[in-house]
Amino acid sequence: MVKICIIGGGNVAFHLTQQFLKSKNIELIQLYNRSIESIITFKNKVIVTNDINKLADADVYIIAVSDNVIQDISNLIPFKNKLVVHTSGSLPMESLSNKNRKGVFYPLQSFSKSKEVDFLEIPICIEAENEKDLKLLEQIASVLTQKIYKISSAQRQYLHVAAVFVNNFVNHLYYIGHHICAEHHMPFEILHPLIIETAQKIKDLDPLLAQTGPAKRNDTITIENHLKLLTTREKEIYQLLTSSINDVYKNK
Amino acid sequence: MVKICIIGGGNVAFHLTQQFLKSKNIELIQLYNRSIESIITFKNKVIVTNDINKLADADVYIIAVSDNVIQDISNLIPFKNKLVVHTSGSLPMESLSNKNRKGVFYPLQSFSKSKEVDFLEIPICIEAENEKDLKLLEQIASVLTQKIYKISSAQRQYLHVAAVFVNNFVNHLYYIGHHICAEHHMPFEILHPLIIETAQKIKDLDPLLAQTGPAKRNDTITIENHLKLLTTREKEIYQLLTSSINDVYKNK
Repeated sequence: MVKICIIGGGNVAFHLTQQFLKSKNIELIQLYNRSIESIITFKNKVIVTNDINKLADADVYIIAVSDNVIQDISNLIPFKNKLVVHTSGSLPMESLSNKNRKGVFYPLQSFSKSKEVDFLEIPICIEAENEKDLKLLEQIASVLTQKIYKISSAQRQYLHVAAVFVNNFVNHLYYIGHHICAEHHMPFEILHPLIIETAQKIKDLDPLLAQTGPAKRNDTITIENHLKLLTTREKEIYQLLTSSINDVYKNK
Repeated sequence: MVKICIIGGGNVAFHLTQQFLKSKNIELIQLYNRSIESIITFKNKVIVTNDINKLADADVYIIAVSDNVIQDISNLIPFKNKLVVHTSGSLPMESLSNKNRKGVFYPLQSFSKSKEVDFLEIPICIEAENEKDLKLLEQIASVLTQKIYKISSAQRQYLHVAAVFVNNFVNHLYYIGHHICAEHHMPFEILHPLIIETAQKIKDLDPLLAQTGPAKRNDTITIENHLKLLTTREKEIYQLLTSSINDVYKNK
């Protein structure tokens, strides 16, 4: 059975711990975190420690901490030639210490401790230095999800920026929609079904084909009318996205 | 029973016709369209015509045609003092001819003929010149959905621009995500769960609180790294949205 240690006490560490504790094919042998408080909740189910020198002997060490401390933590692991992976979307595999075998185990989803996660739906991107370690990570990931992707560090940085567009930036457009509704005394819930439909649609339809609206039609009258209704910042965003949509379709 | 005529042969007309034919509380008495082809499919269930002068005597005429011909069609209706409504998100109620009572019956969703629509989930925005007509529209809308909103023409234009942000512009960000994935040989489906989760989240959480990512954290190192990966146009969009998110959170 694969023996795993999880390093970290944040949201990713929390959800991985919960899942591994449920699994019969994984032996979660230890949790480490600098402060014991955030992992103490698991103390009846698995050994917890805040002393890095008491780290147990495991097959895989999963480092689920903030990007800026991953390298330091990986240097502090008191073993050699073990498989050590991080869970970051943006850092290359090479940011890990050279004294151990390196890998990445990146679950592509935003987590919060308060919200239940359906892990089966979460893609896990894996990377390793050799086939054997990659197989091991695949085996561990398969306990959590069927959606496993082999993604290199070079690809992963593009995936991460793509995620910023479809998650962070999309949410900001929701914020603008919410703001416009609030300013004009309409409940934002009017837009919920449209938001859900727009998101669901991409499962069946390439976004290139799903595009609708005045920008695609180059309906300049509607566009001019809309611009009159917006604040300076909203107008800038409206114009840039309209012009970007226009560029995509003008030659189609 | 309320007698209705539908004017138009596009997606909205098609879906309204289907729904009204199923309802026991609505008598759909006639469909009119300039070209008979797009409504002929309903000829065994309801009278269809392409002669505006043969329009039957109804309680309500629902004009579901392109914005640019709504006014003309409303002028051609060979009756007076009837309730005539359009289904447009962007045109004011006043764009309808003065010879009849005016109203708006705007289903806020994007329709395509090929896709089944769950009307119960679709908000319908109604407007009329007097309480009695508004009640009548409310009665008709209640056949289709429980989500009925009284929205003035002034509000509706803001709602329409908000819909452009959360639907058209969001889809364009999906397009950019798709493009980045394709360029780097990753299937766009990796991002589907994140996209769905981001959309679902706004049902429970104000987008102001749901925001995450480097722009909110003002994580300039990640932002600089991302900018290096993008094309000129993508970079412009990334910078503008990052700066807009920054403005929202810098004083919070």
